[in-house]
Amino acid sequence: MPTDTERASFEAGIKFGSLYHQFAGTPVSPDSAESLGRAMEEAIENQPHCVDVDVTVRTDRIAAELDSQSAEYTELTGRFLDVEMRIEYEGVTARTKMEMEGDYPLMRLVAVEE
Amino acid sequence: MPTDTERASFEAGIKFGSLYHQFAGTPVSPDSAESLGRAMEEAIENQPHCVDVDVTVRTDRIAAELDSQSAEYTELTGRFLDVEMRIEYEGVTARTKMEMEGDYPLMRLVAVEE
Amino acid sequence: MPTDTERASFEAGIKFGSLYHQFAGTPVSPDSAESLGRAMEEAIENQPHCVDVDVTVRTDRIAAELDSQSAEYTELTGRFLDVEMRIEYEGVTARTKMEMEGDYPLMRLVAVEE
Amino acid sequence: MPTDTERASFEAGIKFGSLYHQFAGTPVSPDSAESLGRAMEEAIENQPHCVDVDVTVRTDRIAAELDSQSAEYTELTGRFLDVEMRIEYEGVTARTKMEMEGDYPLMRLVAVEE
Repeated sequence: MPTDTERASFEAGIKFGSLYHQFAGTPVSPDSAESLGRAMEEAIENQPHCVDVDVTVRTDRIAAELDSQSAEYTELTGRFLDVEMRIEYEGVTARTKMEMEGDYPLMRLVAVEE
Repeated sequence: MPTDTERASFEAGIKFGSLYHQFAGTPVSPDSAESLGRAMEEAIENQPHCVDVDVTVRTDRIAAELDSQSAEYTELTGRFLDVEMRIEYEGVTARTKMEMEGDYPLMRLVAVEE
Repeated sequence: MPTDTERASFEAGIKFGSLYHQFAGTPVSPDSAESLGRAMEEAIENQPHCVDVDVTVRTDRIAAELDSQSAEYTELTGRFLDVEMRIEYEGVTARTKMEMEGDYPLMRLVAVEE
Repeated sequence: MPTDTERASFEAGIKFGSLYHQFAGTPVSPDSAESLGRAMEEAIENQPHCVDVDVTVRTDRIAAELDSQSAEYTELTGRFLDVEMRIEYEGVTARTKMEMEGDYPLMRLVAVEE
């Protein structure tokens, strides 16, 4: 049987995959970044064992992308997101983070503490 | 060649399909309904020719759903949404609405005016 | 009241927005492109008035993208898609197409015929 | 630092959340269930450390749903899915499963083995 730290880690992964694939592809601009980030936080915090979600939609990177293209908005993808989450499962706290590793938005399990 | 009123109607349809299928399935509760509705509005207003999007996430219907199930949140779907949109394309205004028709959330083209 | 050609155009737009925003962000590689394209076609053909959907997921463009990055898959987005659809509504046929216009994946209403 | 079994569990969770939230809301009928299940499997198998994904879209449950409603298709949601996955991370195998627990589609970490 999996341990509580493994289950907490699994729950943390679910939240990350959910957040990313629910919202990837959303039309986004610097002006709409704030409301999108807030909705992502509150939506995922509904999920079981999810205590805190902190999303920053990177308006600086969106603005840079818009400079190089014709449309006035783009689609949400990993490089426009900084995310941190805290999951609590049966007394175990799992902390996770998404950050760019080179050109890849890596979802990382930062710490699992009983 | 399609006319401007037909193109305006096509653009209006794109926005509706986008809004629905980007956000359907999002975890939602009465407490997170407001931020989700706001993000939906601002996201879709980014799209070309989309002048105004008004989304009401129906907390009354979500609350009723939660009364009949074990989880404390549900997934966004058509019966939890009232939506109105205004699209402007080459001087044509298209107005659209989503509302329940029996058990089906019908997307309707309400008016197309030059 | 909108005309049948306008309503057919609206229905065509709904299908395009649905197809795009349901599937944008899906992990895709040259090997999985075929099954994804087939699922997109059959999913959207379920929608009312949607007679035919033809999706080509561009493995050539996906392969080129993979050459320039570290991961072995990417996310589905507009430049990897060629799409054509035929909608029939009350005797009106609407034909649509998605194709790149410069750097933007433009959804176009090609013809509306009674 | 998290252990390899915790990291494997986290990776397994990511895949589950991704699969669910990428595809929830997709229009589905008994006829299109097969292609959708196949696309889900192949899409998620692209993700890192994901060795095997097995999806059964439950045509029996979809057919029962269609009997009770007016439309000829419905939206993909948890009760229409049986899913099993195998993740391998640094010599650790994580097995996961989604199944209904009462009215809730529970994602479960079944086993984590070094």
